[in-house]
Amino acid sequence: MIRTHEAGTLRKEHAGQKVTLAGWVARRRDHGGVVFIDLRDASGSAQVVFREEDHAHDLRAEYCVKVTGEVRRRPAGNENPDLPTGEIEVVASEVEVLSESAPLPFPIEGSSGVSEEARLKYRYLDIRRQKIADALRIRSQATYLANEVMRERGFVYVETPNLTRSTPEGARDFLVPVRLQPGNWYALPQSPQLFKQLLMVSGLERYYQLARCFRDEDLRADRQPEFTQIDIEMSFVDQDDVIELGEALIGRIWKETIGYELPTPLPRMTYAEAMARYGSDKPDLRFGVELTDLTDYFSGTSFRVFQAPYVGAVVMPGGASQTRKELDAWQEWAKSRGARGLAYVLVQEDGTLGGPVAKNLSETELAGLPGKTGAKPGDAIFFAAGARAASRDLLGAARLEIGRRCDLIDESQWSFLWIVDAPMFEEDGEGGWTPVHHPFTSPKPEWADNFQDNPGEALAYAYDMVCNGMEIGGGSIRIHRAEMQQRVFDVLGISKEEAESKFGWLLEAFKYGPPPHGGIAYGWDRVCMLLAGGESIRDVIAFPKTASGYDPLSGAPTPISPDQRKEAGVDATPKADKGESDKPESAPAQ
Amino acid sequence: MIRTHEAGTLRKEHAGQKVTLAGWVARRRDHGGVVFIDLRDASGSAQVVFREEDHAHDLRAEYCVKVTGEVRRRPAGNENPDLPTGEIEVVASEVEVLSESAPLPFPIEGSSGVSEEARLKYRYLDIRRQKIADALRIRSQATYLANEVMRERGFVYVETPNLTRSTPEGARDFLVPVRLQPGNWYALPQSPQLFKQLLMVSGLERYYQLARCFRDEDLRADRQPEFTQIDIEMSFVDQDDVIELGEALIGRIWKETIGYELPTPLPRMTYAEAMARYGSDKPDLRFGVELTDLTDYFSGTSFRVFQAPYVGAVVMPGGASQTRKELDAWQEWAKSRGARGLAYVLVQEDGTLGGPVAKNLSETELAGLPGKTGAKPGDAIFFAAGARAASRDLLGAARLEIGRRCDLIDESQWSFLWIVDAPMFEEDGEGGWTPVHHPFTSPKPEWADNFQDNPGEALAYAYDMVCNGMEIGGGSIRIHRAEMQQRVFDVLGISKEEAESKFGWLLEAFKYGPPPHGGIAYGWDRVCMLLAGGESIRDVIAFPKTASGYDPLSGAPTPISPDQRKEAGVDATPKADKGESDKPESAPAQ
Repeated sequence: MIRTHEAGTLRKEHAGQKVTLAGWVARRRDHGGVVFIDLRDASGSAQVVFREEDHAHDLRAEYCVKVTGEVRRRPAGNENPDLPTGEIEVVASEVEVLSESAPLPFPIEGSSGVSEEARLKYRYLDIRRQKIADALRIRSQATYLANEVMRERGFVYVETPNLTRSTPEGARDFLVPVRLQPGNWYALPQSPQLFKQLLMVSGLERYYQLARCFRDEDLRADRQPEFTQIDIEMSFVDQDDVIELGEALIGRIWKETIGYELPTPLPRMTYAEAMARYGSDKPDLRFGVELTDLTDYFSGTSFRVFQAPYVGAVVMPGGASQTRKELDAWQEWAKSRGARGLAYVLVQEDGTLGGPVAKNLSETELAGLPGKTGAKPGDAIFFAAGARAASRDLLGAARLEIGRRCDLIDESQWSFLWIVDAPMFEEDGEGGWTPVHHPFTSPKPEWADNFQDNPGEALAYAYDMVCNGMEIGGGSIRIHRAEMQQRVFDVLGISKEEAESKFGWLLEAFKYGPPPHGGIAYGWDRVCMLLAGGESIRDVIAFPKTASGYDPLSGAPTPISPDQRKEAGVDATPKADKGESDKPESAPAQ
Repeated sequence: MIRTHEAGTLRKEHAGQKVTLAGWVARRRDHGGVVFIDLRDASGSAQVVFREEDHAHDLRAEYCVKVTGEVRRRPAGNENPDLPTGEIEVVASEVEVLSESAPLPFPIEGSSGVSEEARLKYRYLDIRRQKIADALRIRSQATYLANEVMRERGFVYVETPNLTRSTPEGARDFLVPVRLQPGNWYALPQSPQLFKQLLMVSGLERYYQLARCFRDEDLRADRQPEFTQIDIEMSFVDQDDVIELGEALIGRIWKETIGYELPTPLPRMTYAEAMARYGSDKPDLRFGVELTDLTDYFSGTSFRVFQAPYVGAVVMPGGASQTRKELDAWQEWAKSRGARGLAYVLVQEDGTLGGPVAKNLSETELAGLPGKTGAKPGDAIFFAAGARAASRDLLGAARLEIGRRCDLIDESQWSFLWIVDAPMFEEDGEGGWTPVHHPFTSPKPEWADNFQDNPGEALAYAYDMVCNGMEIGGGSIRIHRAEMQQRVFDVLGISKEEAESKFGWLLEAFKYGPPPHGGIAYGWDRVCMLLAGGESIRDVIAFPKTASGYDPLSGAPTPISPDQRKEAGVDATPKADKGESDKPESAPAQ
């Protein structure tokens, strides 16, 4: 090492020692003949004093320097109790500029007001900022802890392929042309799902991986085309085993990184209850404001809008005092979510009920509303009426918006829970069914024989871990019997040909004594974002891409040259005789 | 868990306990009314006894079963001391078939004679075999140990992108079309080299990752299109620091997995010495048989073939007794390596020297040969003459072949060493220079100012760890000064445009106070192969591909459909106005 000490580790006990530090010029202050520099390295920073100007006159911000000097206690009154090294300073006797820095595109110290564009383009400077570096360090710490937990529990860390089989149905697969087999393509995996199930067939029993996943999908907020999951699969287990493991894993991480003790066992809530009470399958329980089901209440109403399969409401505390403009903004908000609007009744401070909907309701209907919904004088009651799922979804979103606008969410709290008993299937809008999780998800034991008779009612043996209103992990017990898997494919309308094309190699494997198994995957970027207190997963990704998949740092993606195109075999026609190229070749061992 | 115990953990202390096991039917023996089954799970196996035939009559090989029964000591004389569970058996009272198995393509127990094609196609059955499963487990154990070492030493685990920038020069990059930016492509990284150096610029100081790398290259023996490396980079370090870390890492792994104590510090050998003595930059020191340089010895020879820039020899113990056919085979061997042949002199048991070359040498030349080369009566002396590098390479290969044919290699030994002081550049065969490591490799300090004046002599600040004749890790101290980097590009004939296109974003980063840094990467597949005693890296990869990049299990790669092609934007023309699509977009935070 070209230094003897790390700057942030110096204490008054080092006084009198000669030390050599190396790091960056963080801050510089000139005081008539004396120059103070904060020398920053990965451990923190220390104040370096240059007695004579000439040592320091060419040290500018973010120069990388090596400084030798003597540690001394700061003169009385000059200590900085906010800084771990605040009791000492280093009196420089030698300084060497290891490398200079051009003028910075933005300052490293003091953080506000830098565009994300600039931050990502100069990500290596952005990471010099403590908050960003801390976020990456906490991610690293969490990764090490995950390894520790899984190791203690006997999991086998297995790396699964990233160059896998493309299937015509995998519309969101990234594709990769193969130069050595022109006209043939790999696909990057959306997850290691098939491989981890194969590893269970192979008898490894406990699999774990920090797995990179790829999805070339339409970008929603805060998605990345590549992301990481903690991927886990276990044999001979039941739902409780996977849940216990998940709590141990997340519990260790939260405790060791930020000192929070997970209150295990975590509460479990059925999907049905979560949808009914919170209008969400990932409810944020850091605040109340539950939905009220008013379908029965309005069963005899003459108000046409409420003559609907479902009527529900959610109360906004203090919402009656909103301005007309604010109430109009709610309508716009609802429309932006595809709803026609957001009906409301205002409970005035004197107890009278107002707002445009009020006049459509009978006096009895109005009178009972505050009691039924829990609205107090001064509150607003928002309604949704129509199809049950869409209405609850709207109320659930309104609930979250109310939580934010009314500042009801205690950001210092953690709300963890499991959502269990999700439906196996949901309607695909075209008269068919689509899996809520994925087609390998087992029904709950009580639905094992008859899920196909009531696809809309059947419950999956699945579990999602929810934290602060975000799904951070999800998994299920899988189907391990071919005949049950076939029934699921039948419900989903997946033909034998499609099943063969998509999953043929997994189905083939399942002929050879597959064990009962199940697993879970945690969205690692999101877990780390929560740990680091970030607002976006980009905060915990060293080199993230923008929402459009663009990397401002490298400029990726880019057009390719005709030569690259030719070389990579992008336009080659696959050999008609696949026999030869498809045959595995035995490479000689090295 | 649907079982109470793991089969392999049962001991005589469990006698009398009722247990439930779950696993696979490994072996079945019928003994008139009594059926014995070896029940195998991930922990090992236990003998299960079925008293009545009807419990067991439909249990066939590799059925997955759940068995409940009572543990008892085996009758005296029936113990199996080779088996950890050999003192007990489980008397079954209940059995449930969890899933059946179709007839197997090859037997799981008893391993010989299965083609690699079948093994890879049914990899999940192959992994049920103990040897293969053990190899994956040792890899997992090594991975956990690597994490442990790096964590103890304060390394930050950082995941770098797999979707990165393609450059026209990156001829071996896998390319990935981007659906959302049609006509633009990512490249999969051949290594995280640029990113890890950026992380040093960012001040993280200690970076570590288990990194997946991709290379679409012509396939040589035992390569995979995707492979894994333990990737490490450190700031403010010197060569000794990286070497010490590498020894600590490999030392911990070898000790904890197979109980071998690495004799640290490992020997270091210069590249020049390795080439001179062993004709290799990765010498296998488990046996002797060193090269002899005879250039001076033959400086006055009249034998035209030995009037060459380099003449060298290597001795094959006992080689004089080879048949004519064997000696001819050596010629073929040499020709298959691109040499014209392999000249030899045989030292007969009576001390006379024979073979076709002998008659071309003077008596003095002949007489001194045994003493000069160390050949004893009965040995053969092989010669190579010509260009130094090619001749040494041939002799080095002959040395390895001699080691194998003469059974000189003690397979129970470990030979670890560092090769240091490699040349910075080697001739590219077209009058130019190419880097021996990569263009960011720093010269040794004594060559810092003048490497450009003697590119053929300049030494790199690089180090390779060699184990048993294989390079398992390699790294270097990097260049961190723009002006030195420019001189390297000049020697390599890399134009400003090419440098900009390939490394522009790294060079830009280096303007902002880059620290001195260096690192190393270990070829993880190869390290694990050595640990597991495998013969191919495919032995330690869960789902390997064949040498042609084919995956017999999934059938990847495959042709893609016209719809996929269109959807992925394979044939799209990039927008003329790149301004818009290139602009980073700020996604709303979640």
